[in-house]
Amino acid sequence: MSVTAAEGFVAAGCHAGIKRRRFDMAMIATEDRQPVACAAVFTQNKFAAPPVELDRAILRANGGRAAAVVVTSGNANAGTGEQGLKDAKAMGCATALALNVGVGDVLVCSTGIIGTPLPMQPILDATPRLAGKLSRAGAEDAARGILTTDHRPKQVVIRGSNFTLGGMAKGCGMIAPNMATMLAFLTTDADVPHAALRRILKRAADETFNTLNVDGAMSTNDTAMLLASGKRGTPDFEEFGNAVVAACKDLTMQMARDAEGMTRIAHLSVTGAANDAEAKVAAKAIAENNLVKCSWYGGDPYWGRLLAAAGSCGAAMDVAKTRVSYGGIAVAEGGVAVPHDGQALAEHMMGEEIAIEVHLGAGAHNARMIGIDLGPGYIKENSRTS
Amino acid sequence: MSVTAAEGFVAAGCHAGIKRRRFDMAMIATEDRQPVACAAVFTQNKFAAPPVELDRAILRANGGRAAAVVVTSGNANAGTGEQGLKDAKAMGCATALALNVGVGDVLVCSTGIIGTPLPMQPILDATPRLAGKLSRAGAEDAARGILTTDHRPKQVVIRGSNFTLGGMAKGCGMIAPNMATMLAFLTTDADVPHAALRRILKRAADETFNTLNVDGAMSTNDTAMLLASGKRGTPDFEEFGNAVVAACKDLTMQMARDAEGMTRIAHLSVTGAANDAEAKVAAKAIAENNLVKCSWYGGDPYWGRLLAAAGSCGAAMDVAKTRVSYGGIAVAEGGVAVPHDGQALAEHMMGEEIAIEVHLGAGAHNARMIGIDLGPGYIKENSRTS
Repeated sequence: MSVTAAEGFVAAGCHAGIKRRRFDMAMIATEDRQPVACAAVFTQNKFAAPPVELDRAILRANGGRAAAVVVTSGNANAGTGEQGLKDAKAMGCATALALNVGVGDVLVCSTGIIGTPLPMQPILDATPRLAGKLSRAGAEDAARGILTTDHRPKQVVIRGSNFTLGGMAKGCGMIAPNMATMLAFLTTDADVPHAALRRILKRAADETFNTLNVDGAMSTNDTAMLLASGKRGTPDFEEFGNAVVAACKDLTMQMARDAEGMTRIAHLSVTGAANDAEAKVAAKAIAENNLVKCSWYGGDPYWGRLLAAAGSCGAAMDVAKTRVSYGGIAVAEGGVAVPHDGQALAEHMMGEEIAIEVHLGAGAHNARMIGIDLGPGYIKENSRTS
Repeated sequence: MSVTAAEGFVAAGCHAGIKRRRFDMAMIATEDRQPVACAAVFTQNKFAAPPVELDRAILRANGGRAAAVVVTSGNANAGTGEQGLKDAKAMGCATALALNVGVGDVLVCSTGIIGTPLPMQPILDATPRLAGKLSRAGAEDAARGILTTDHRPKQVVIRGSNFTLGGMAKGCGMIAPNMATMLAFLTTDADVPHAALRRILKRAADETFNTLNVDGAMSTNDTAMLLASGKRGTPDFEEFGNAVVAACKDLTMQMARDAEGMTRIAHLSVTGAANDAEAKVAAKAIAENNLVKCSWYGGDPYWGRLLAAAGSCGAAMDVAKTRVSYGGIAVAEGGVAVPHDGQALAEHMMGEEIAIEVHLGAGAHNARMIGIDLGPGYIKENSRTS
């Protein structure tokens, strides 16, 4: 049920004709068509897509609420300028008409290729049909309707003591901290006002989506949304906040496992940084370093590349106090190799998920990041788009 | 002749036993064993290798001069700590003894894998043999003795009106702005004092080596050196400075063409930035973006990825004023596709060298960078080192 698991939401997915065969549109709406509290976080890319601009403006204007969300996949409506903004607005209008809700309460998202105008006719034709399919059973179709190069839909449900939280996401390439080609839609029946919802979503995104680094590329369309119908009353805010983190974490790992060309996930922990910002910079530098990523693909515990990446990112590092370990097995201390169990190390490196700690020896601040290896599959998926 | 083309220099290369079969040591010395002016620029990596630390100390102590340079390849003597510094000093001592020059006038370089102690016995055994082979004809052997994953030696000779400038270099992976696993040795018979030599080399490195971005990785061992024997008197400094830039540029393009897994070189020009620093940041962000690099591999003129990369790097960008062109063919203006000659564009993209301009529309500052595509060859070369 995912995005319709919480009381008060319906969803649907369909094939409009943007992609050749697969589902390429999705819709989420409140069951009673009334607007509910909605918080969202967006890409920080200056080349943000028109739908991102539109949604920012809508949520600013209505104080943070939504009655429906409409999504296209296969075309990002990015790099489309004025026409792109008109097209996004037309998608919102068509949805508002079909659902009989205010156009100022409809959010619009798109994901897919950049630089090509949206094929509006099939989208406008499909909108009433999509609205007619809305149901609680439509969550599965909706989760398929938002996918691009994903291999699998990504869904999650968490049941709290007096609330349910459900969600769906897409994303597997162009993913970097600060969100990338990633869309996530979460719904809950808890009653949480917009300001609290926003704070909770922001924190969860920072701790989960923003730690996933598939390829260092930040997209034009990233959006994560959380809608709260309020049907089941006020939750314990700590329990609710933790549930949002858990749901986002679950979707993040589903995205990591579906990353383009992925053969191995690295749970990277940078410790001993001089401050939080430098810990993050170092983690990002390591997770995005192609030599490091190739060594993960090869299952090669080449710790020298980890320190070389950390040493070149600007973060303070005291080489004499550095430590590197794979799967808890220390391989270097003070910038020099140390004796270790080579058999255990080799076995850890062959796993689909490896754990790496790089200690910078410069302080007591830490950061975590989820890195993805760089193998031929990534190149195959990204060398030709047309 | 390359590194011995200028009067007053001899060189040699040999197989010491670090690598299985190929040459793995090189030496350059003054013909009369007298120290001459020497300037050098080094990696900015905080995990710099012991030989880099040693050379910095030597040039600081002796005011910028050298009588000989000894190089090992196959092992970087990096991530080797105290023992690594002792080993680098031992290499310098053995060379000083063999040549009967002061140990304070011998520079030491290493390049290769990180984290494994230098095999000192074969190196010390080979040193007198290498010294015995020094000759003007030895430049070719020396150019082979410094290579690691390079496919070809890289050499250059430039003849000025009253000076000769020659050089050799190695490097093809782990190359990023601010020098990467790159060693370059230049010699001249011009008479140029250390301070001027340093200024000229620094400028040339900034304009050439530091614009090459193979994989965004900065190495632990990068070093470029320029030795001036003074045998032929004072040059015109402008002519000499331009010759150093030209020689470094030539070596840079030889490195680009030999880059690991390279199938296509992108001459990237970022224009219209708000300031010089942001122009460089944007050029680096584009050149290191894996989605962009994959599109170069595929010969895909996917301009949306260029703007998405520029838009996420922090540099100011006015989307409405942006322009993107490939080979002078404008494909997007104001963040939107514009009509263009698709046939001419496709032909340009299939070339081994492509030209790209990304105009940010935020000012009048520019930067250039040489980017390399990301293809399966790069992964093959870097996924296993052991």
